[in-house]
Amino acid sequence: MSDALIKHIEQFVALKSRDREILNKALKPRPVKKKEYLFKEGEVCHSNYFVVKGCLRLFFINGKGTEQITQFAIENWWMSDYMSLDRQRPSTFYLQAVETSEIISCDTVQFEKLILEIPELERYFRIVQLKAYAAAQFRIRYLNELSKEKIYRHFVSLFPDFVQRVPQYMLASYLGFTPEYLSELRNKRNA
Amino acid sequence: MSDALIKHIEQFVALKSRDREILNKALKPRPVKKKEYLFKEGEVCHSNYFVVKGCLRLFFINGKGTEQITQFAIENWWMSDYMSLDRQRPSTFYLQAVETSEIISCDTVQFEKLILEIPELERYFRIVQLKAYAAAQFRIRYLNELSKEKIYRHFVSLFPDFVQRVPQYMLASYLGFTPEYLSELRNKRNA
Repeated sequence: MSDALIKHIEQFVALKSRDREILNKALKPRPVKKKEYLFKEGEVCHSNYFVVKGCLRLFFINGKGTEQITQFAIENWWMSDYMSLDRQRPSTFYLQAVETSEIISCDTVQFEKLILEIPELERYFRIVQLKAYAAAQFRIRYLNELSKEKIYRHFVSLFPDFVQRVPQYMLASYLGFTPEYLSELRNKRNA
Repeated sequence: MSDALIKHIEQFVALKSRDREILNKALKPRPVKKKEYLFKEGEVCHSNYFVVKGCLRLFFINGKGTEQITQFAIENWWMSDYMSLDRQRPSTFYLQAVETSEIISCDTVQFEKLILEIPELERYFRIVQLKAYAAAQFRIRYLNELSKEKIYRHFVSLFPDFVQRVPQYMLASYLGFTPEYLSELRNKRNA
């Protein structure tokens, strides 16, 4: 049962009932434990991951030995290390579940097979990737432009529920803050 | 004659001679003068741009009134403000030719028409966008991780010719440096 994924695909392209059957058969959601890794640095990434329920984080270990989060993925997001997946080179990232989650993984072999069987998926993935790329372009802009405090305010205004959902030290890592600085900003806001 | 684009497409998907004819008819390269704008902040972006020859830069005006470059596009790259293009909202960027260039612009109406006529283009754009997204993921990582000097060294090692090609103040803007700091780094290297 990959209902969530099928619903998501149908937001962008029309599927036939035969297509839905193929997808239901090929892509099964599986549980992922909190803190379970989907891949680690040094491993070649073979799959793209769709979050049915829960939350994943993509991070790397920086020069100081600290985890630095670059992306989160929640419900209805695809996530992977696309450089590793595209070039079949070892990843420089870790992908890990933040919460107990349910995900669908689709490996490259399966992906090419599915795309042959359901050509509409080309369009679906093109659109979804365009949106992800647009968000990355925007993010590169605000990483360049805004002060740390403004980045935080902007993020809270865009994703108020998400800010409540993830552990604060992870949010700090994603925003490039120390946990102490984030706590200061939150207190300032509540004051 | 959109030979460069057709060659680029054929690196990723097979085209029939009929497809080539359609593309040649629909997408004509046009000259763009040095410093000419393809769109400006506040305008809705309707096209995706392919660089046949030359160089474009995407930039915004930051809070201090300074131009801040976030991306360059050279031969065989597509470039646009994809948030503006996708949502048909006013752009917050400027797209401008750095050099006298030759580009192909493809607007959304034309794009949807071409994709219906040549379904292989879905695959081409999916792949090209995946590569662009992978590069953006990687860039977000190194913007988070590396010192300014390391970012410069890394960039020079990846794109040695490009570093010689663009005006140094633009390279400084892209890397988030002052022109003085970039000049210091270059001298240090040559010393």
